[in-house]
Amino acid sequence: MTDAVKPRLFRGLRDQLPESMAARQWLIDTIRGVYELYGFVPLATPAIEYLDVLSGSAGTEAQESIFAVKNPDVRRGDRDEPLGLRFDLTVPLARVVAQYRDLPRPFRRYQVSSVWRVDKPGPGRFREFTQFDLDSVGVASEVADVEIIAAMCDTLSALSVGSYRVRFSSRRILNLLLKYAAIPEQIEVVERVRSGSDSFSEQKSMRPADDVFRVLDKLERVGLDRIRLELTSGYTDESGDFISGLGLKDGQVAKIEKFLDIHSDRRQEVLDGLRDTFGDVDGANEEIDVIAAMSRQLAGLGYGDDRVAIDLSVARGLAYYTGPVFEAVLLDAPQFGSVFGGGRYDNLVTRFLGESIPATGASIGVDRLLAALLEIGRISARRATAQVLVAVLDRSMMDEYLAITFELRRAGVPAELFLGKKGIGKQFKYADAQGIPIVLMVGEDEKKSGTVSLKDLRLGKELSGEVGSDRKKWLEEQPAQFSAARSKMIEAVKNTLARYSDS
Amino acid sequence: MTDAVKPRLFRGLRDQLPESMAARQWLIDTIRGVYELYGFVPLATPAIEYLDVLSGSAGTEAQESIFAVKNPDVRRGDRDEPLGLRFDLTVPLARVVAQYRDLPRPFRRYQVSSVWRVDKPGPGRFREFTQFDLDSVGVASEVADVEIIAAMCDTLSALSVGSYRVRFSSRRILNLLLKYAAIPEQIEVVERVRSGSDSFSEQKSMRPADDVFRVLDKLERVGLDRIRLELTSGYTDESGDFISGLGLKDGQVAKIEKFLDIHSDRRQEVLDGLRDTFGDVDGANEEIDVIAAMSRQLAGLGYGDDRVAIDLSVARGLAYYTGPVFEAVLLDAPQFGSVFGGGRYDNLVTRFLGESIPATGASIGVDRLLAALLEIGRISARRATAQVLVAVLDRSMMDEYLAITFELRRAGVPAELFLGKKGIGKQFKYADAQGIPIVLMVGEDEKKSGTVSLKDLRLGKELSGEVGSDRKKWLEEQPAQFSAARSKMIEAVKNTLARYSDS
Repeated sequence: MTDAVKPRLFRGLRDQLPESMAARQWLIDTIRGVYELYGFVPLATPAIEYLDVLSGSAGTEAQESIFAVKNPDVRRGDRDEPLGLRFDLTVPLARVVAQYRDLPRPFRRYQVSSVWRVDKPGPGRFREFTQFDLDSVGVASEVADVEIIAAMCDTLSALSVGSYRVRFSSRRILNLLLKYAAIPEQIEVVERVRSGSDSFSEQKSMRPADDVFRVLDKLERVGLDRIRLELTSGYTDESGDFISGLGLKDGQVAKIEKFLDIHSDRRQEVLDGLRDTFGDVDGANEEIDVIAAMSRQLAGLGYGDDRVAIDLSVARGLAYYTGPVFEAVLLDAPQFGSVFGGGRYDNLVTRFLGESIPATGASIGVDRLLAALLEIGRISARRATAQVLVAVLDRSMMDEYLAITFELRRAGVPAELFLGKKGIGKQFKYADAQGIPIVLMVGEDEKKSGTVSLKDLRLGKELSGEVGSDRKKWLEEQPAQFSAARSKMIEAVKNTLARYSDS
Repeated sequence: MTDAVKPRLFRGLRDQLPESMAARQWLIDTIRGVYELYGFVPLATPAIEYLDVLSGSAGTEAQESIFAVKNPDVRRGDRDEPLGLRFDLTVPLARVVAQYRDLPRPFRRYQVSSVWRVDKPGPGRFREFTQFDLDSVGVASEVADVEIIAAMCDTLSALSVGSYRVRFSSRRILNLLLKYAAIPEQIEVVERVRSGSDSFSEQKSMRPADDVFRVLDKLERVGLDRIRLELTSGYTDESGDFISGLGLKDGQVAKIEKFLDIHSDRRQEVLDGLRDTFGDVDGANEEIDVIAAMSRQLAGLGYGDDRVAIDLSVARGLAYYTGPVFEAVLLDAPQFGSVFGGGRYDNLVTRFLGESIPATGASIGVDRLLAALLEIGRISARRATAQVLVAVLDRSMMDEYLAITFELRRAGVPAELFLGKKGIGKQFKYADAQGIPIVLMVGEDEKKSGTVSLKDLRLGKELSGEVGSDRKKWLEEQPAQFSAARSKMIEAVKNTLARYSDS
């Protein structure tokens, strides 16, 4: 043969080996079950899209995160229209909504698919990952947002994640803050630019008011003192970099701090705080009424303060969102941050159609949620789908083993016939390593007496003290635990499986 | 806004809108169910692979069918190692087996994923499509092939495809034919090359003996006369092209014809024919014994001549296969050809490891199988997941509608609350278009009497003669069919759904 090819993956990519796939599929099936109960319908789109569809007028940063695909038709003389792999599921949804004008409205769809991003790979950061999105398109009513929040709760409950909290706020409440603190749409900022090793020149630039929220978003990470400085005069951080300030006045910062002070685990208290604070702001009550109605509807459906909070610190890439925003955290695994988030974004298809269509939705980062659930022990990796390994003791009896294996399968018991060329000891080791709970054996003795022998490998785990360190020996020597006439085989297997609740 | 982007897809790609996705997901779930019952475990691999991993020493044809992905790390100064999208699931499986040396053996995995190929797009031919593969790696025994054939049968039965036939043969039986007809490993062929508008020059070249099978593979399409000519002197076809002959002698062709003559719906007759024909060929009985044993084991498991045939015309890209080969056709949709096929290929990882590992498996072209099942009416497209649309008659009662919707969902009935801003007539049209069978209504009257009204839209279809052409009017006017006290609502909905078996 010619030079061997080294089997390897491009950096940032990974295989999902069977032990992680079982948990992943259970997760996806469970989420799908909830979304279909809500009447959301499935959609799938191609991985490859035109680059202008993907990135549109987005900045170079977005473009640089896209995996470029060579347009194969260029070699036939076609014009080179660049292609790329999708980096999220929202852009393809927008394209679909714009492209098929006869789709139903509302269009309530879910999609679970891989997306690709040229991010710098790191621990837990991959360049292909799975997103699970659900969205209602064409619905202006906040009832659609309530439904998304309820679906988030029902999904997390169905996944048995333990305690969780869905936190929501609204982009429009944050707009009230700008009015309240009299912050103009454009802020004049003085930036200090390094012009030598120790010298700086000053430079004025205009920043959008949204920069205030970008600063507030850092609150948990850097603390209130630095937030104050960044809102006003700026500061020099540990590494010597100068962080420009937004040049707000003390009175404005005081009002922002008053807003930041509104927090409570009780939604009603947050609503009361908002009415107190923004009482004099023009149009404030109408906006507060909207999230108050959402809170009331959620309460009516049984989503109380224990599961859903109004949290004004939820910001979520505000340039994109136009109304309610939401995110979910697992209280047993807060280090994973938001595992599920979204909001209302009424400008979804504007760049395709030149008109806006209301839309709201949420997205699960499947990989991060899966990592969190494995971390807190809510699900466990499982290598095998089989519940029974039919061992091969005597190759001349292969037809009999085949028949037994198929009897089990036809009775709904996932079963594997050992097809390797190994002795019974190694077959036990194989079942044990794969997590197959039962080994079924038929040798000469069983054949004579018309029985089968079952060995419950979980018993070995239970008896680990007695089995001691020589587990391999135990596996080989311990006599079979169960035996049954052939006609009773299925019953014996099912009874054995039922002995442990985790089977 | 700036110039609008046209929402569109690259040629050869397509969206899976909800109406096709429901059938697709049912198909995939059903196949997965069978494979897991067999104890196969799931695997997923990234879409992007190194080009040398994908194509290896494959010819330029294989390379040209690969979508090339730009290596994004080259701009950071890395060496340009070309990347591409996988074109099948077998190459990634080979890489995985070669890369993770501690995988269990046997490694019995399934994988369902998109693959991409730069084929010329055409009706029903797409550049992204879904394959569903199952393979046993590390098993030399033909019992593994028997299991694959059984799984193919069980899958097709579970999918209710109607009558089907799994046909199998073996590469090694075909090798016997070469011995029997005394065809050398390399055949000297005289090709005629056009050297002017009416003149040709002759040119000798060596072809592998496998070319005989490439010719036989055309039997059904071109007929025996042309096969005879192509095996011997060649011929000029309708378009004036000269099809070179393989230069076999008449005695050799006679032996090939005798082989082609062995066909029967009864496996035993084919086996008898093989023993008669190849009786004198060295080693023939051992090879025939292998497929005879497979046939016997299949019969013992209940896979009789009605479902599984030995068919010596099954060839399936022979360069690749090393043992049994199999394919399945739907007898009610033979025009779709083989919807499911595979075979034994013991050189899977050779180009990675320099050693051979036995492997056998089969692959379903999900798109083709789905098209076939839709064509023969075995499954139907369905737009909705919801069974009930909760109509909005009076927006002031929204909290009540929400509560009803969630009551249904919590009782396991997929339900959708209408979230658009449309009158009841359009809500009926929406439910009808989406295929949601029941509309649930609560207006002032129902509120007073503590009831809900249900309208079964399928009844309109049943009464289509009476409803006539003015279906829209009927939808709006026909009085509600059912009414129930609130506590009986779930029961009434379930009873209504149960009235038609297709719900």
